[in-house]
Amino acid sequence: MEAVSNLVNNVSNLVANVSNFSQPYDENREERASVVIGGNEAMLIEFNAALLADFRHVERTLFALQRNLDDFYFVTLTAITFAMQCGFAFMEVGLVRTKNTTNILLKGTIDAFVGCLSYWLFGYAIAWSQGNSFVGWHHWAFANLPPEKYSEAFYQMIFTNTAATIVSGAVAERLNLPCYFVYGTLLSGFAYPALSRWGWYEGGWLKQMGFRDFGGSGLVHMFSGACALVAAIIIGPRVGRFDPPRQGEASHGQHIPGHSLPFVGLGALLLIFGFLGFNAASQLSLSKPGDGIVITYATLNTLLGASGGALTALFLNRFLPFWGNYWSYLTMMNGSVAGMAAICAGCDSLPSWAAVLSGILGGIAFIVGRAILEKLEVDDPVDGFAIHFCGGLAGLLSAPFLIREGILFKGDAISAVGFGCNLLGAVVIICWAVIWCLPMFAILRWAGVLRIPLEMELAGMDAAKHNELSYPVSAWQEDQHGFDNKILGNNWMPPHTKMHSPLSANLTLRRRDSHVIDSTCPASCPSTEPALLRSVSTLNLGEVNPALDVSVPVLTTKRSTAL
Amino acid sequence: MEAVSNLVNNVSNLVANVSNFSQPYDENREERASVVIGGNEAMLIEFNAALLADFRHVERTLFALQRNLDDFYFVTLTAITFAMQCGFAFMEVGLVRTKNTTNILLKGTIDAFVGCLSYWLFGYAIAWSQGNSFVGWHHWAFANLPPEKYSEAFYQMIFTNTAATIVSGAVAERLNLPCYFVYGTLLSGFAYPALSRWGWYEGGWLKQMGFRDFGGSGLVHMFSGACALVAAIIIGPRVGRFDPPRQGEASHGQHIPGHSLPFVGLGALLLIFGFLGFNAASQLSLSKPGDGIVITYATLNTLLGASGGALTALFLNRFLPFWGNYWSYLTMMNGSVAGMAAICAGCDSLPSWAAVLSGILGGIAFIVGRAILEKLEVDDPVDGFAIHFCGGLAGLLSAPFLIREGILFKGDAISAVGFGCNLLGAVVIICWAVIWCLPMFAILRWAGVLRIPLEMELAGMDAAKHNELSYPVSAWQEDQHGFDNKILGNNWMPPHTKMHSPLSANLTLRRRDSHVIDSTCPASCPSTEPALLRSVSTLNLGEVNPALDVSVPVLTTKRSTAL
Amino acid sequence: MEAVSNLVNNVSNLVANVSNFSQPYDENREERASVVIGGNEAMLIEFNAALLADFRHVERTLFALQRNLDDFYFVTLTAITFAMQCGFAFMEVGLVRTKNTTNILLKGTIDAFVGCLSYWLFGYAIAWSQGNSFVGWHHWAFANLPPEKYSEAFYQMIFTNTAATIVSGAVAERLNLPCYFVYGTLLSGFAYPALSRWGWYEGGWLKQMGFRDFGGSGLVHMFSGACALVAAIIIGPRVGRFDPPRQGEASHGQHIPGHSLPFVGLGALLLIFGFLGFNAASQLSLSKPGDGIVITYATLNTLLGASGGALTALFLNRFLPFWGNYWSYLTMMNGSVAGMAAICAGCDSLPSWAAVLSGILGGIAFIVGRAILEKLEVDDPVDGFAIHFCGGLAGLLSAPFLIREGILFKGDAISAVGFGCNLLGAVVIICWAVIWCLPMFAILRWAGVLRIPLEMELAGMDAAKHNELSYPVSAWQEDQHGFDNKILGNNWMPPHTKMHSPLSANLTLRRRDSHVIDSTCPASCPSTEPALLRSVSTLNLGEVNPALDVSVPVLTTKRSTAL
Repeated sequence: MEAVSNLVNNVSNLVANVSNFSQPYDENREERASVVIGGNEAMLIEFNAALLADFRHVERTLFALQRNLDDFYFVTLTAITFAMQCGFAFMEVGLVRTKNTTNILLKGTIDAFVGCLSYWLFGYAIAWSQGNSFVGWHHWAFANLPPEKYSEAFYQMIFTNTAATIVSGAVAERLNLPCYFVYGTLLSGFAYPALSRWGWYEGGWLKQMGFRDFGGSGLVHMFSGACALVAAIIIGPRVGRFDPPRQGEASHGQHIPGHSLPFVGLGALLLIFGFLGFNAASQLSLSKPGDGIVITYATLNTLLGASGGALTALFLNRFLPFWGNYWSYLTMMNGSVAGMAAICAGCDSLPSWAAVLSGILGGIAFIVGRAILEKLEVDDPVDGFAIHFCGGLAGLLSAPFLIREGILFKGDAISAVGFGCNLLGAVVIICWAVIWCLPMFAILRWAGVLRIPLEMELAGMDAAKHNELSYPVSAWQEDQHGFDNKILGNNWMPPHTKMHSPLSANLTLRRRDSHVIDSTCPASCPSTEPALLRSVSTLNLGEVNPALDVSVPVLTTKRSTAL
Repeated sequence: MEAVSNLVNNVSNLVANVSNFSQPYDENREERASVVIGGNEAMLIEFNAALLADFRHVERTLFALQRNLDDFYFVTLTAITFAMQCGFAFMEVGLVRTKNTTNILLKGTIDAFVGCLSYWLFGYAIAWSQGNSFVGWHHWAFANLPPEKYSEAFYQMIFTNTAATIVSGAVAERLNLPCYFVYGTLLSGFAYPALSRWGWYEGGWLKQMGFRDFGGSGLVHMFSGACALVAAIIIGPRVGRFDPPRQGEASHGQHIPGHSLPFVGLGALLLIFGFLGFNAASQLSLSKPGDGIVITYATLNTLLGASGGALTALFLNRFLPFWGNYWSYLTMMNGSVAGMAAICAGCDSLPSWAAVLSGILGGIAFIVGRAILEKLEVDDPVDGFAIHFCGGLAGLLSAPFLIREGILFKGDAISAVGFGCNLLGAVVIICWAVIWCLPMFAILRWAGVLRIPLEMELAGMDAAKHNELSYPVSAWQEDQHGFDNKILGNNWMPPHTKMHSPLSANLTLRRRDSHVIDSTCPASCPSTEPALLRSVSTLNLGEVNPALDVSVPVLTTKRSTAL
Repeated sequence: MEAVSNLVNNVSNLVANVSNFSQPYDENREERASVVIGGNEAMLIEFNAALLADFRHVERTLFALQRNLDDFYFVTLTAITFAMQCGFAFMEVGLVRTKNTTNILLKGTIDAFVGCLSYWLFGYAIAWSQGNSFVGWHHWAFANLPPEKYSEAFYQMIFTNTAATIVSGAVAERLNLPCYFVYGTLLSGFAYPALSRWGWYEGGWLKQMGFRDFGGSGLVHMFSGACALVAAIIIGPRVGRFDPPRQGEASHGQHIPGHSLPFVGLGALLLIFGFLGFNAASQLSLSKPGDGIVITYATLNTLLGASGGALTALFLNRFLPFWGNYWSYLTMMNGSVAGMAAICAGCDSLPSWAAVLSGILGGIAFIVGRAILEKLEVDDPVDGFAIHFCGGLAGLLSAPFLIREGILFKGDAISAVGFGCNLLGAVVIICWAVIWCLPMFAILRWAGVLRIPLEMELAGMDAAKHNELSYPVSAWQEDQHGFDNKILGNNWMPPHTKMHSPLSANLTLRRRDSHVIDSTCPASCPSTEPALLRSVSTLNLGEVNPALDVSVPVLTTKRSTAL
């Protein structure tokens, strides 16, 4: 019985020890435990009952925590993945001209909205609900979806937006807005969901064969890149992009630069940020043993792939003799995205060096794809095809060789079959993209609604369709600063303004066209200028509110003199 | 005794099995377990003691992990919520003119700093510390705050900044900077914290009655929207915003467009990103059973609400005959924010379709509110009232109908009382906003410090108050590129420059005003131009450092010729 | 035996209770448990065996979850930390002129790529693998790295990029690109990793002495700030930054403003966002008891430090009589970064008020450092030295006083030794920076490859090195909008365009240089203008594709008239 008393001591020590730790759920555990352990067999039985009760509590707590964590995992990474939407939008914004900036912003943003609703209504049911190997048909609009499936459904909803976004870049500056709703709804709600079921759903036919695409090199990037190509071919190049050859020149495309490289950079960096969440979430679980390591590999490899792709594209563009031998920032960033598109397929199980290699292959594929489209005179303003299709293809086909259980390491029949399945998958993806996009865009073109009229293309859609200039001139009229030193004086300036203040020298500079136009135009362009002048005057004077009793006569006077 | 030997076998198998798994905390568990199980009753007792020890260890580990996860949950989502600060700032930046961009940036950013310090010093104590139903009075400046409460306090600190930020948009381009410190401190440190206590603190009087506002449709968005309205009315419209009617025109407001729609888009997208964290963190816990599902609903519904609000506002603006029938990007993004403001109230328990409906109601409310303010000639540059007040109101009043335990589903007395409480809450919120803002802004106006002088408003605050132009002309002087082909030559260009390089054609274009002014101004505007010319020369020549022994005489020469 | 039957009842109740909760791993547990508990002693033995089995399962699940969470913790916060890369890039982008924007974007982005590969290949092995107190030499390129170490390695990889990025700002607008690869590889791959080993690795010699720098005030910020200073001194100021004194003026530096303050603001806000992740991840674990609280302190203090630093710098700049008494946004944001650099050293254990104080010290140090560099005529375009070195130094030296176990609270010998160690560490860091950077940059300068030629500096690197203008003029040619009202007509405008649409008044304004130049230049600058005109015509006409059968003759005609 010494053992028992030892036990009692031990247990009460333990209990004392444990009770230092707050245990909100069971206040009288101590009493129960100490009372119980007093007999022998009966004591043991009661002790065991108490232990069992505590144990079940811990067990329940743990499993509830697991489920919470899976939800939290999805929610957090989905939020980060949402940054990809911002990244894509700003890469596209930077690559169009100011006359179409509002338009591309609207398209790039509305993805998130139209895609979400379309996927909510149709896509999720088709892709992930019960059904056969090709299509599911339950839980339309999430009806009767069990609560524990919501977080994954939410993640898939954000995921799906990528497809439509990539296409919107390829048809930028010329697609008619209503068409955007048509193809956005169809691609996000039907085409992509079906494809994703084949390759990812447990019973999908491609997946059951052995097709393996962890993060979507094929199912997301190749597919949307192929759609982008079909759309770009059918809609035709932008006006001025591929002129007939001029005298003494080879027939080059006339590159049409976008209006803001910093926005491209911002978009690309946000895209990498979002991609880290995108590939981390593709494991679809955080609570199973080993999930953490897969998630780590996926994100680390994403960054290594981006690095490989970026530097490869940068150096190829710099040192190959075809592209003017410049250090092209745009090429580098596109290469990094291509590297990430390539890495997706096997990012869960590529060794680090193979991740870098995958990225390099993606960068090379991007450079090749870009050159081919240029040769074929297909106008893809954001290089969506070269980045996503070529990058994704490189990844989908190289992954079966490079992953840890792949051909290079194992070299057995199973790994070879994996390559075959991925090859088949690539063919299926291309066909599926063509099957959807060729008729859709052909019909829209035949109906005459695919492309905006030439006049609108020349003038830009921001003014015509949206009545919102991206950078309205009136908001940049900083000539308010300079020309009225006398009235504005310095009475409202902080006391020490008279010190050397280098910036004030510049203020005087900010005179824009108006004054210059005032003096030179009446002679040279009499027909259009009066309207111009009137608008200038209107605008400037409009900003002085005559209702206020502060007179600013000098403004008016000086302008009159200038005229 | 066979059972015992079976048990011993089982246990040793288990032990062997378990020992594959690294258990760093108890190295001699195997010996102990195998030794112990050798007697009968004593064996059982010792075995139980060992099991209990292990169990308590697991229990402690689990509870420590729970607490860590709650902290991690807050920290991660708070970081994401911080992106809202960036989002608000850039929506506002895009909506002002360049002459006030630095000013609005400073205001939009200083929120985060002033609000944090103010909430740290006063707000947290008032809102969340022990006290009565109206106000708390412990833990000023987090003094003696228990460590486990820090993470929630941190989250509330970021949350509170939203209020002041929304007001700063409504008074943009005309508020005097010192006033900003006054109302920022008061709203973030006192008014909002008290209100949030009433509605969210366990013993808050509104909450105890049955007021229900999960994410802050009323407590955050309506409140700050109402403050914004009061402030906008008292400070009056910007110069030129509501001119008296011109000849032959109806009395419209003169819309004053902001300087950069892409920044508005960037801000809105970052805002959605931050909103996902904002509503996910409003559950205030990750470790309780069921938290995960609530967090999932909250974020999913946020996005669905944004989608509903965005598309509703877009289509209303496009197809109703009042606004020129354009596809307005700005309207869409404002609608999406209004949809999110509406969804907050019930985002934890709205079914998906109801979330979309809430967003739609928010979008409609935004459109209506915007039209009313336009009619009343109140100038709110960022539509803060229409978005946040109207959107929030729509959400606060619709949530009691639409949530799972709401009037539409239950239709019982309890749910009806919930609606009554929310209605009362809305009235309280409006009154509270007026009680604080009306005297505060009226006094500031009476004291003559509320609004900047007219001259400064015309000239812009960036130059006058900040001496920092948002886009200094001198930094955009790219005429360095073009006019000196002869000296710059191509000696420093990469070897293959002579190839067709489309961009170089553009370089020559980037001549700004200076040269044109050189030739035309001496005749037409003699009085001010010499100063201008001098500054031009100074500036350009200043960039050639005479101390360096590289002479660039042609620069000087050509300029002289031009003069 | 009543106890036993009670027990059986209890247990079966429990089992029923538990079985409501889905337990996927052990379907027949109920039967086993109920069958087993039927004898007496044998029953107990079998019951215990079953309990043990369940317990081991829970134990395994918990430990697997802990490991997953540590990985998830690193991955999530690393993604957020990656936003710092974006933040640094855009602070730098905003602070250079448009002629070098592409260049600085490329440098700021390539960090992430070159740094990652360099750290992957060399840095990790040097810093964190087995070795002595100074250097490690295993796991080059992550070879044979155990899977559970990947997530921390990934985080350290992102962390390391900070060092190179800060230097890139200090040599902006004049460093030759190839040098960037040299120092990027050396700093990220060798210099910083060795230093971080000394201060952070368990057996590092500085750490073993008692050096304490939780988040890198010294090891990251001071080090990179010191490197930046050495680089800036050796490369010399930008042309025009420090002219010899002009007549009647003191010898001031000529401030060269950057081209976009909003980008600076965007960068700074993203930097704060990323910093929250950066300091939260420095705890390096989420699963140990107490980790959550440390993480919370670290992030909360980061924000408080940023607030203190920002407001301090803002007010000093406004009210001290040395800097023109403006409310400088740039100064405020730099102050906030300096405050965060200062807070890093002790952010895990500073009380809140001490965090604010640390930030204030950082802000003061920044202001002082900036003034000193200005006096010494060292040109650091982004104030990298003043922000990171001075801010970091303030933090590293103040932390031993202010932390909870510091000199102010304890005042014992141990805390005093901590100060001594940090002082020693500061000296070591400075020496290490000089040892690496002085020879490296001196050799590069001696070899004549450090700095770009003067002509390229004047013309900007974007055109010369990258052939990518950040804001190409052709993409901003919005005069497409206005001058052709007659042809474009309104046939493609939405039906209600004839309504009052305020924006359309502005459209006419957007005429840029071309037309004005047309009329004025032939007389004043005949030598260069024909080329200019040709390029203008080419460019505009190029956008009308003659291959399309839509003739736009009026475009051509009108232009000819103007000419």
